[in-house]
Amino acid sequence: MGLIGGSFALDLKGINPEATMYGIDTSEDHLDKAIELGIIQEKAVFEDLAQADWVILAIPVDKMVEVLPRILDVIKDDAIVLDVGSTKEQICKSVENHPKRRNFMAAHPIAGTEFSGPTSAQRGLFIGKTNIICEVEKTASGFQQKALEFFDAIGMHIRYMDPKSHDKHIAYVSHLSHISSFMLGKTVIEKEKNERDIFDMAGSGFESTVRLAKSSPSMWTPIFKQNKDEVLQPLREYIDNLNRFKELLENEDFEAIYAEMQQTNRIKEILEGIHLKKMKL
Amino acid sequence: MGLIGGSFALDLKGINPEATMYGIDTSEDHLDKAIELGIIQEKAVFEDLAQADWVILAIPVDKMVEVLPRILDVIKDDAIVLDVGSTKEQICKSVENHPKRRNFMAAHPIAGTEFSGPTSAQRGLFIGKTNIICEVEKTASGFQQKALEFFDAIGMHIRYMDPKSHDKHIAYVSHLSHISSFMLGKTVIEKEKNERDIFDMAGSGFESTVRLAKSSPSMWTPIFKQNKDEVLQPLREYIDNLNRFKELLENEDFEAIYAEMQQTNRIKEILEGIHLKKMKL
Repeated sequence: MGLIGGSFALDLKGINPEATMYGIDTSEDHLDKAIELGIIQEKAVFEDLAQADWVILAIPVDKMVEVLPRILDVIKDDAIVLDVGSTKEQICKSVENHPKRRNFMAAHPIAGTEFSGPTSAQRGLFIGKTNIICEVEKTASGFQQKALEFFDAIGMHIRYMDPKSHDKHIAYVSHLSHISSFMLGKTVIEKEKNERDIFDMAGSGFESTVRLAKSSPSMWTPIFKQNKDEVLQPLREYIDNLNRFKELLENEDFEAIYAEMQQTNRIKEILEGIHLKKMKL
Repeated sequence: MGLIGGSFALDLKGINPEATMYGIDTSEDHLDKAIELGIIQEKAVFEDLAQADWVILAIPVDKMVEVLPRILDVIKDDAIVLDVGSTKEQICKSVENHPKRRNFMAAHPIAGTEFSGPTSAQRGLFIGKTNIICEVEKTASGFQQKALEFFDAIGMHIRYMDPKSHDKHIAYVSHLSHISSFMLGKTVIEKEKNERDIFDMAGSGFESTVRLAKSSPSMWTPIFKQNKDEVLQPLREYIDNLNRFKELLENEDFEAIYAEMQQTNRIKEILEGIHLKKMKL
């Protein structure tokens, strides 16, 4: 009943007004809040999954690999199960030989923010966002079609990828950003004991770079755990690049510093490409 | 005629509709654009400064230390000069013994973004933003009053600081964010040669953390040059923190990783404090 699961429930209900959304959560408060906010209509427990038509699994990725096979154990033959995890290899592996593997679609909707919990869920969150689907060939075509119709109806852009490639690329464009942001926040908090100085001197640039440091440790620790090897690679490269920048600064090689920044300015066109893609949808 | 200088000109004109804004820029195109956009009414050259009532110096900080003393050389006795540089110690030092030191106010409006040039200038940019004023006691009280009335009228919050403290703190809450962002952009661009992967997989988190990597190298190289020693300190601490995080990951110490993130979550309250402060204005 968090940002992603809650937002999917709102959109599913929006498209299928006659459907009932059932919520399962370890937190009773989150379930109450989800009912209050109209995200779900009913609370449910694990055993109720045997009656579900659609199951959206939006929980920390370490729990996914435990819970997903158990869900496939209990669901109906015509039920479809989707996950939304930020890692894909271990999740896919957890059900690779499951007799109901074909009822499952491995997905990663790139729609997370630094917020969590039911109050962060919102209708329309997925409009223009990318949904990365892994091992699509392992999902039965009837379920593929159902899921893709839903993703299309809520405005998502689909990209197919194998789980290994997903985990490798996402480490660069998402997981690394979170480490960079958390450690930046840490560096500033440690130094600036007098928070007044941070309040007054921090501009929008600081806010933007540390925004992700508000993210949930319960969600992110398991991601780093599952994607350890793929995360270590960009993290080492990032540290190397920072060390090189530091050495250029120590050696007062300002021409090289200028060149580093100028070459990286190309990110402008890349970010514009992202927006262009979204606008086309 | 960039973001800061242009925005000040728009606000000055807004408050004093009878005043004429004159622009000086090394780029003739920027001057033409500034006239077209109504930022200035007339182009001017250095010699015209002898007639100016107000001078706002918004140029790269390495040029400031050359140009500022020359401006004080030519201005009228009742003219006021403000700078907007992101470093303060060397700028203040460049005019410390100038006979017209009292006509100058050293300021740093914390209102920059990743954009530059006249098209980025906007009316109302400074509403709710902090303006750090250094060595206020060295500015004649009449000029202090004039400048503070203006800053108040355009919605700025004033903070007084000595130049050394300014340069030290701003290295943490601004300069470090820029390096972090540039090197993050570099790391991803180097690896993801196929930009399609960045377009499709990058979410709002990546955009937020690399936004500052769009910033102008011509503006930022001189800032890093002038504030080298103060920038190296947080940069070293940041690299140390990243190395520690990397080691925790290598050693699979996920409890410690959780704790690191949880402690840094305190940035939420700090950022809320920033917003609260802005809303009170």
